[in-house]
Amino acid sequence: MIGYQFMGKAHSHAYRDIPFFFEPKANPILKALCGRNKEAVEEAAEKMGWESVETDWRQLIAREDIDVIDIVTPNHTHAEIAIAAAEAGKHIITEKPLALTVEEAKRMKEAVEKHNVVHMICHNYRFVPAVQYAKQLIDEGKLGRIFHFRANYLQDFIIDPAFPLIWRLKKEVSGSGALGDIGAHSIDLARFLVGEIDEVTAMTQTFIEERPMGEMAGGLKGAVNSDEMGKVTVDDAVAIMARFANGTFGTFEASRFATGNRNKNTFEINGEKGSVRWDMENMNFLDVYFTDDDKGVQGFRRVTCTEEEHPYAGAYWPPGHIIGYEHSFIHLLYEFVEAVVDKRQPSPDFKDGYINQLILDAIEKSAEDKSWQSIPYQTE
Amino acid sequence: MIGYQFMGKAHSHAYRDIPFFFEPKANPILKALCGRNKEAVEEAAEKMGWESVETDWRQLIAREDIDVIDIVTPNHTHAEIAIAAAEAGKHIITEKPLALTVEEAKRMKEAVEKHNVVHMICHNYRFVPAVQYAKQLIDEGKLGRIFHFRANYLQDFIIDPAFPLIWRLKKEVSGSGALGDIGAHSIDLARFLVGEIDEVTAMTQTFIEERPMGEMAGGLKGAVNSDEMGKVTVDDAVAIMARFANGTFGTFEASRFATGNRNKNTFEINGEKGSVRWDMENMNFLDVYFTDDDKGVQGFRRVTCTEEEHPYAGAYWPPGHIIGYEHSFIHLLYEFVEAVVDKRQPSPDFKDGYINQLILDAIEKSAEDKSWQSIPYQTE
Amino acid sequence: MIGYQFMGKAHSHAYRDIPFFFEPKANPILKALCGRNKEAVEEAAEKMGWESVETDWRQLIAREDIDVIDIVTPNHTHAEIAIAAAEAGKHIITEKPLALTVEEAKRMKEAVEKHNVVHMICHNYRFVPAVQYAKQLIDEGKLGRIFHFRANYLQDFIIDPAFPLIWRLKKEVSGSGALGDIGAHSIDLARFLVGEIDEVTAMTQTFIEERPMGEMAGGLKGAVNSDEMGKVTVDDAVAIMARFANGTFGTFEASRFATGNRNKNTFEINGEKGSVRWDMENMNFLDVYFTDDDKGVQGFRRVTCTEEEHPYAGAYWPPGHIIGYEHSFIHLLYEFVEAVVDKRQPSPDFKDGYINQLILDAIEKSAEDKSWQSIPYQTE
Amino acid sequence: MIGYQFMGKAHSHAYRDIPFFFEPKANPILKALCGRNKEAVEEAAEKMGWESVETDWRQLIAREDIDVIDIVTPNHTHAEIAIAAAEAGKHIITEKPLALTVEEAKRMKEAVEKHNVVHMICHNYRFVPAVQYAKQLIDEGKLGRIFHFRANYLQDFIIDPAFPLIWRLKKEVSGSGALGDIGAHSIDLARFLVGEIDEVTAMTQTFIEERPMGEMAGGLKGAVNSDEMGKVTVDDAVAIMARFANGTFGTFEASRFATGNRNKNTFEINGEKGSVRWDMENMNFLDVYFTDDDKGVQGFRRVTCTEEEHPYAGAYWPPGHIIGYEHSFIHLLYEFVEAVVDKRQPSPDFKDGYINQLILDAIEKSAEDKSWQSIPYQTE
Repeated sequence: MIGYQFMGKAHSHAYRDIPFFFEPKANPILKALCGRNKEAVEEAAEKMGWESVETDWRQLIAREDIDVIDIVTPNHTHAEIAIAAAEAGKHIITEKPLALTVEEAKRMKEAVEKHNVVHMICHNYRFVPAVQYAKQLIDEGKLGRIFHFRANYLQDFIIDPAFPLIWRLKKEVSGSGALGDIGAHSIDLARFLVGEIDEVTAMTQTFIEERPMGEMAGGLKGAVNSDEMGKVTVDDAVAIMARFANGTFGTFEASRFATGNRNKNTFEINGEKGSVRWDMENMNFLDVYFTDDDKGVQGFRRVTCTEEEHPYAGAYWPPGHIIGYEHSFIHLLYEFVEAVVDKRQPSPDFKDGYINQLILDAIEKSAEDKSWQSIPYQTE
Repeated sequence: MIGYQFMGKAHSHAYRDIPFFFEPKANPILKALCGRNKEAVEEAAEKMGWESVETDWRQLIAREDIDVIDIVTPNHTHAEIAIAAAEAGKHIITEKPLALTVEEAKRMKEAVEKHNVVHMICHNYRFVPAVQYAKQLIDEGKLGRIFHFRANYLQDFIIDPAFPLIWRLKKEVSGSGALGDIGAHSIDLARFLVGEIDEVTAMTQTFIEERPMGEMAGGLKGAVNSDEMGKVTVDDAVAIMARFANGTFGTFEASRFATGNRNKNTFEINGEKGSVRWDMENMNFLDVYFTDDDKGVQGFRRVTCTEEEHPYAGAYWPPGHIIGYEHSFIHLLYEFVEAVVDKRQPSPDFKDGYINQLILDAIEKSAEDKSWQSIPYQTE
Repeated sequence: MIGYQFMGKAHSHAYRDIPFFFEPKANPILKALCGRNKEAVEEAAEKMGWESVETDWRQLIAREDIDVIDIVTPNHTHAEIAIAAAEAGKHIITEKPLALTVEEAKRMKEAVEKHNVVHMICHNYRFVPAVQYAKQLIDEGKLGRIFHFRANYLQDFIIDPAFPLIWRLKKEVSGSGALGDIGAHSIDLARFLVGEIDEVTAMTQTFIEERPMGEMAGGLKGAVNSDEMGKVTVDDAVAIMARFANGTFGTFEASRFATGNRNKNTFEINGEKGSVRWDMENMNFLDVYFTDDDKGVQGFRRVTCTEEEHPYAGAYWPPGHIIGYEHSFIHLLYEFVEAVVDKRQPSPDFKDGYINQLILDAIEKSAEDKSWQSIPYQTE
Repeated sequence: MIGYQFMGKAHSHAYRDIPFFFEPKANPILKALCGRNKEAVEEAAEKMGWESVETDWRQLIAREDIDVIDIVTPNHTHAEIAIAAAEAGKHIITEKPLALTVEEAKRMKEAVEKHNVVHMICHNYRFVPAVQYAKQLIDEGKLGRIFHFRANYLQDFIIDPAFPLIWRLKKEVSGSGALGDIGAHSIDLARFLVGEIDEVTAMTQTFIEERPMGEMAGGLKGAVNSDEMGKVTVDDAVAIMARFANGTFGTFEASRFATGNRNKNTFEINGEKGSVRWDMENMNFLDVYFTDDDKGVQGFRRVTCTEEEHPYAGAYWPPGHIIGYEHSFIHLLYEFVEAVVDKRQPSPDFKDGYINQLILDAIEKSAEDKSWQSIPYQTE
């Protein structure tokens, strides 16, 4: 695994837990952790249970005892590493977004396809039991024709003007702001749950345009490390209107300026036979409505998705005993491990990452020139 | 109508609204309002639409143009007025609790029965559409055998030690404290929804035992009017355990010291086939659970009881447009007016008030001597 | 008053309740109710307490004993009636939207200004205590600079393809669909709470394009009255992105196809110092967040806006005793009556209605040609 | 560790995660897992990462390489094992309840005190960040004098009469029913948060008195394994009224027949300066109310206890990213490990378990003879 911050921690923990809770066809072995700072990476490896360390990702990829490369580095490094890993015949899992640009994403997708390696992208929210169950209800036709997909992803960790200019606020490192960081998750959920998006238009805004220079300081915190101010080059908030291929009417909003919302990742889907609603801060619940419930007792049901019927939930605790954020990674990486063993493609894969990137790109373009943009996914 | 404070306002408004929203067999005419302070009662009558005033309730009862007496005075006056009104052949509706003591309540019940007048007691919460609908579900067997009835009525308007010693805090005027004022409502709901209570035991507490002398100042506010301190002679909080005749396991709590709860009047009923939950602060909603919902989508449904199927709700606005506290009085007094016209007994009547008083009495006794007390309702 | 359906009922009731709960400078007298069907209007007048009836609105306007004209007829009639009433020197209150077109709205605005009559438009949601209180918090600077305004108005009363083609679904009568009917309310709330909107872009959709012919049947119900099918000529759903003059980032969605949402009229406002959230189905509550709350106890507070501090709420019941939908009309019409007596302009007035219409118009245009549209309100 | 079912899984997982998320003074080593069925215990040990197995707990205790004994067996075995372990000088952690009877509990407490070993009892709910934070607020005086402690622990996993007679339903194995299984948790939370209980009275009920013979089948599921019926010898539900030493008014209810409630473990504490509310199904949230909040914006705040200020939460993910049920065990066992290294007593310990048992015993007695019972904890 390359990288060992927030996402590195989530992935490492998940690998350890897979064989504890599930019955994977093979147990993942935490061979080597890679980072540029030797001391720091050694400390992290010790803490998180990795057998060895590397300080150069090229060395890691060159190692013969490594089957799988897990990329959890900042966004601008994904492409180079992933392409090299594919060329080395390694199976690859990478954090989202796949890349900074469509062109990079396309090259990554082509590389993994050419070298025939298993590839996956970490849209972990797909793997929350309530979300998987929503998907199942939709696939079974329980909601009928879908009218609306409505998603918000709201955070507030940078509303303070003193919050520093971390890498997530620089376009050249992160690609975009709220859009790529959190909006990309909503877009992935939309594609997973409802289907492909035909066209989009968007509006973006940067509320605070200059910030003191600084760096990440764990999780979503930052530390100012300079008196200088720097320019924020990404969006603080984005709103998107979308038309889906199947006629669904889609609206999205992602913001890091939604005061009071720490990590409010929500969607609501309205169909002719029913609706579902979900909120990551209450991730174990799925609110479900059916139009064919008896008159008089129609209403959203608050379903606690901790029962056998709910994907992955049966592996844990009795009904009503909830799980948390980190479990979404256990499920995702479990699926990846199974796919690697079976040598088949899991979902979401680099193609999903590429289409996601196409959509992000169209969104950015549409926001710039106040236009609608078609998504050329059909031609791929 | 005798009395014109908080409850007088609620009743007056309700009489005016009955013909607006419903089709009563007769329209109530607001003949006369009665109170001891001539100026104040005249002002109130003008404001609330009463045709005339009286300052002596005996005069009011003596008037031939009056068919119905509505008693909204402090609790210690109910008995005398009601008995006199019954003797004068007037139909009677009175605020709860019926009386200060079982003995008084019994005499009131006997008086109305002897004089064959229509009588009703104002347990208004029965008449909230969501509560009526809960009753309907239970009567239709939708919840099956009832296991649990669990009710809280939580307020916090007297937690400040500077809140004065109003009449509601004096046993000789109010009968009891949280018990008779709000707990009595929960007991009435229990009897309405689940059935008779066989035996009870209770615990009471007075958290602040002395308060500055004072008086009511509108709604549930008070005004200190003296430097003197006086003794609080009623309970601030009461907890009750009860066994129902049908085997239901009942728990109740009523308190005016439940900080942060303004008027949290709630119940939950668990049965073998389903459950219902209700909360007066969100009075338009009934949460409903059915055990025969499909596995995977079992959960409490939040039903907005604003639809045709919900009792009384069809008289108002389209689905999702909520009503408020005052509407419970419109429904109650509508039923009273219909009953007066039809010369039949509405429910809840003085017998219900009497049984409620028996239960309050048993609760007080059980709290005093730490015993269980049987309710002798069966012998009536 | 001209018209006596859903809105006629809400207005009539409100006029009756104003002097009961408030102390208006003058009591409104329900002089005459006007409708084309003599029998029906007589019945309605009797029921709702109007002294006389008219079957021709021109007759009504001609009456000298009438000071105020209240227009609650379908949208396409507003302009003609209002202009005639203004010319007759009557004060005017009209349901929203002001008119079908900007041109009509402009003529209405000019007429009332020219004839110097008091005029108001019924954006009743402004007058919910929680909304008024949100406004107060914003005006006091408690939320600081506003980043986001986010509003949804979601209904589901026409998802059934068998629901008939009522007037609300015909462009020539209603002007637009979800946009003008419910979206217009959200836009008014946005202007009231945050300020003027500079530019918009929108997306609309009609999910069911043909319906059986029919008519309104009370509230939001319809009755099919023909075998024929007719074309739905309005939007079923609309999404809007907006930039406010003060830099606020605005998103809106209004739909009649949001299955499970009966009347979910919500907004959330995020500012640098705090946020507020509101939902009409729980209209008595305002969720409030402050960034300067102590670390560790930061969170949205659920404030029950039933206390003296909350506008209008003190006129009713003790804290925690909720009010309903109809009360918003009491407050609105109370303000209108006060303004008529004082001969000053209340808010929102025809200018607000006109600007609202400008925005609706820009939204429709932007949806048609996939563009952004500026709102020319500044030049007025 | 002895036992490897539901609780064995929770403990094993927690030991593995302690060094991953925290910085313990020593890393726990999973030396040996003990169970009577060799094949099953070997499979469990492999799965959960234990180095070796034993089939006789006496052998385990005899092993010199073992410092700590963790007892997660059915309740009737706790005493014998714990006393033997204490005699062997092992540090001990045991699942709750400590024992079947007060006498057993007392001997256990005496044994660990005599042999001077570190001892702890697994009341894991204390270790939820929101609960720890509630404790901190109370200790800092933020709630002032406590008026009310109100707790419910509601489950519904045995409402089906076909659910078998598992060990949890037999008094000789489990000690009691809902009382000892879940009510004991509420009592522990009460003691932790508010203080000692002076006296109690209780009511119990067994709704279904005979069930088919059967056994546990993972989690809280059961498998019928016989045509025979057996007698349920424990309570299905219990209600408790309690007076605390500090004057707090306490009410409790625990039930396995609360249809629709999977694992609703809740409490509310009302004090003179504020209140807190918590619910295990939404365990990351603490609702907090302060009386000194400004008038107009008073209301329960929904605090997402996922921030640095919240005990243990800083070890995980950024604010708003929730944790689950299993994390309560990580925190508890982390405290145990620290205490073992430091050779000091953690809390809750066997004395807490013993007092809990005294209370359970008083509750059962009071329910039997309809009396109030004092808790003799003061004399210890």
